[in-house]
Amino acid sequence: MSQPDPQRDRLRGVLSPVLTPFNTDLSPSADGLVRHCRALVEQGVSLAVFGTNSEAASLTVAEKRGLLDALLAAGIPPERMMPGTGACAMPDAIELTRHAVTAGCAGVLVLPPFYYKGVSDEGLFRAFASLIDGVADERLRVYLYHIPQVSGVPISLKLIERLLKAYPGQVAGAKDSSGEWDNTAAMVREFAAAGFDVFPGSEVFLLPGLRAGAVGCITATANVNAGEIMLVYREWQTPKADALHDRICEIRAIFQALPMISAMKEAAAWQSGDAAWRTVRPPLVELTDDQAAELKRKLTDAKYEMPLAGTLGYSGR
Amino acid sequence: MSQPDPQRDRLRGVLSPVLTPFNTDLSPSADGLVRHCRALVEQGVSLAVFGTNSEAASLTVAEKRGLLDALLAAGIPPERMMPGTGACAMPDAIELTRHAVTAGCAGVLVLPPFYYKGVSDEGLFRAFASLIDGVADERLRVYLYHIPQVSGVPISLKLIERLLKAYPGQVAGAKDSSGEWDNTAAMVREFAAAGFDVFPGSEVFLLPGLRAGAVGCITATANVNAGEIMLVYREWQTPKADALHDRICEIRAIFQALPMISAMKEAAAWQSGDAAWRTVRPPLVELTDDQAAELKRKLTDAKYEMPLAGTLGYSGR
Repeated sequence: MSQPDPQRDRLRGVLSPVLTPFNTDLSPSADGLVRHCRALVEQGVSLAVFGTNSEAASLTVAEKRGLLDALLAAGIPPERMMPGTGACAMPDAIELTRHAVTAGCAGVLVLPPFYYKGVSDEGLFRAFASLIDGVADERLRVYLYHIPQVSGVPISLKLIERLLKAYPGQVAGAKDSSGEWDNTAAMVREFAAAGFDVFPGSEVFLLPGLRAGAVGCITATANVNAGEIMLVYREWQTPKADALHDRICEIRAIFQALPMISAMKEAAAWQSGDAAWRTVRPPLVELTDDQAAELKRKLTDAKYEMPLAGTLGYSGR
Repeated sequence: MSQPDPQRDRLRGVLSPVLTPFNTDLSPSADGLVRHCRALVEQGVSLAVFGTNSEAASLTVAEKRGLLDALLAAGIPPERMMPGTGACAMPDAIELTRHAVTAGCAGVLVLPPFYYKGVSDEGLFRAFASLIDGVADERLRVYLYHIPQVSGVPISLKLIERLLKAYPGQVAGAKDSSGEWDNTAAMVREFAAAGFDVFPGSEVFLLPGLRAGAVGCITATANVNAGEIMLVYREWQTPKADALHDRICEIRAIFQALPMISAMKEAAAWQSGDAAWRTVRPPLVELTDDQAAELKRKLTDAKYEMPLAGTLGYSGR
């Protein structure tokens, strides 16, 4: 008998930190999330639910558990899911991670505890170790979430090295949302050979990443530009790749020029005709009318059409 | 009949963000917390439990509810308590705040949601408004927690002005842990007359604060230097005040030269003879042996003796 291959069922390709639709009373819309996730999966995009762009920090652990259960009950395949489960309090991270692993999720994307700043690699090592030891399940696959400009807590290469050494079976990769290509390239160079899968946090690095040995990307804009981003992933080794990549970067830039979560929700509202999509939880705010008009003008000029528009309505009033 | 005075029962003076004792398995020690709180109250210090220095971010909402219940069950007076109840997810903040208000706590100290950075005052206004409207209890007294170097989310003077205008009964004051005296002085100058109580976040600003119109301070070091800090508060209008103030600043500086939470826990362990006090939750780490020796040497040189040492043991093994 051959040895089991720990990388066999690894998630690769394009993942989206799935936007969380809210009802206008600010409760999360499980129906809306199911519809959006189903549409993304059908386009080939996998599901990093509960990411930064999902407003996951604004959801309680109980709300995240409930939404995950709703997705599973609706038949969204857990092997296409990498829920975000990091938290400031490690018992919260352990609870949500255990729930995800038990449900069969392919992996979990884990922020470091992010309240205290300037903490040591020793402290962060202990945090991740307490998660892995606390969940205590061989099926657990942890993806480390490096987004220092938001979390304030970077995940250093030294920390990755130490975690990989201590937990080679559980530490499966990282999302690098730093926007620093040199760091992403260093992650690939130093750890990919050990089975560590690196996902840049933006499609801007999808093509350079794949060429350097990254395995895909986890990008917010996949919520609103799934088809074109998937095309780059499918065609990355063909002569068309660079032109296709330029196009997705053009669309990315339009969203990134505005508060991005609210801009994506504005586009979803516009394209689906469902105004409830505009709803965000505080401390975020929806776009102003001027911002919304600017977004619509730029997207129209770019001949943008949302590939998921027909499936986005949820009437969360 | 006279009008009720909304400021009558306001907390004033010296508060401590109470250190949270953990058992060596990292569970919180309710017994240890009760003992420490009782000793602080007896010294005249009030209780900002679940603050930054309490490792509150590392505790779940359920753990905080449980600890608050244990304090109340042990007879610690809620009118001496200002628990920290802020959270990234506003439903968590609402749940814990409602619990505190129902229990009769004098106030709550509320961090803004702190994951997303660069958010607007409009978004933060909505967050605090959703808390106040969500709790919907006339007894609620909110103290805004400004600690931008940790939270990454400042509370601007403009935001305070707007909140005070919208919720004059509920917005009771602020803790300013920025360390920027000009900001503390501006808070007092602009809002104290409207009944807004300003607490500097360190005893370094206790005397200047009282002289400028602040109402006390909320300071970590009150965990380990309660008696001397209370003396400054009691004597601040006497000729002795400056010399007493120099002394508490000297002790503060010793703790502040090291990772402060771990240094205070080291001192508690040393003075009480109970090594369990050293336990911190990740991502924090206890002092190294060298750091502990340095702390002990400096405190001995300064003829420091912890006023609460005899009450600190809890054997959290």
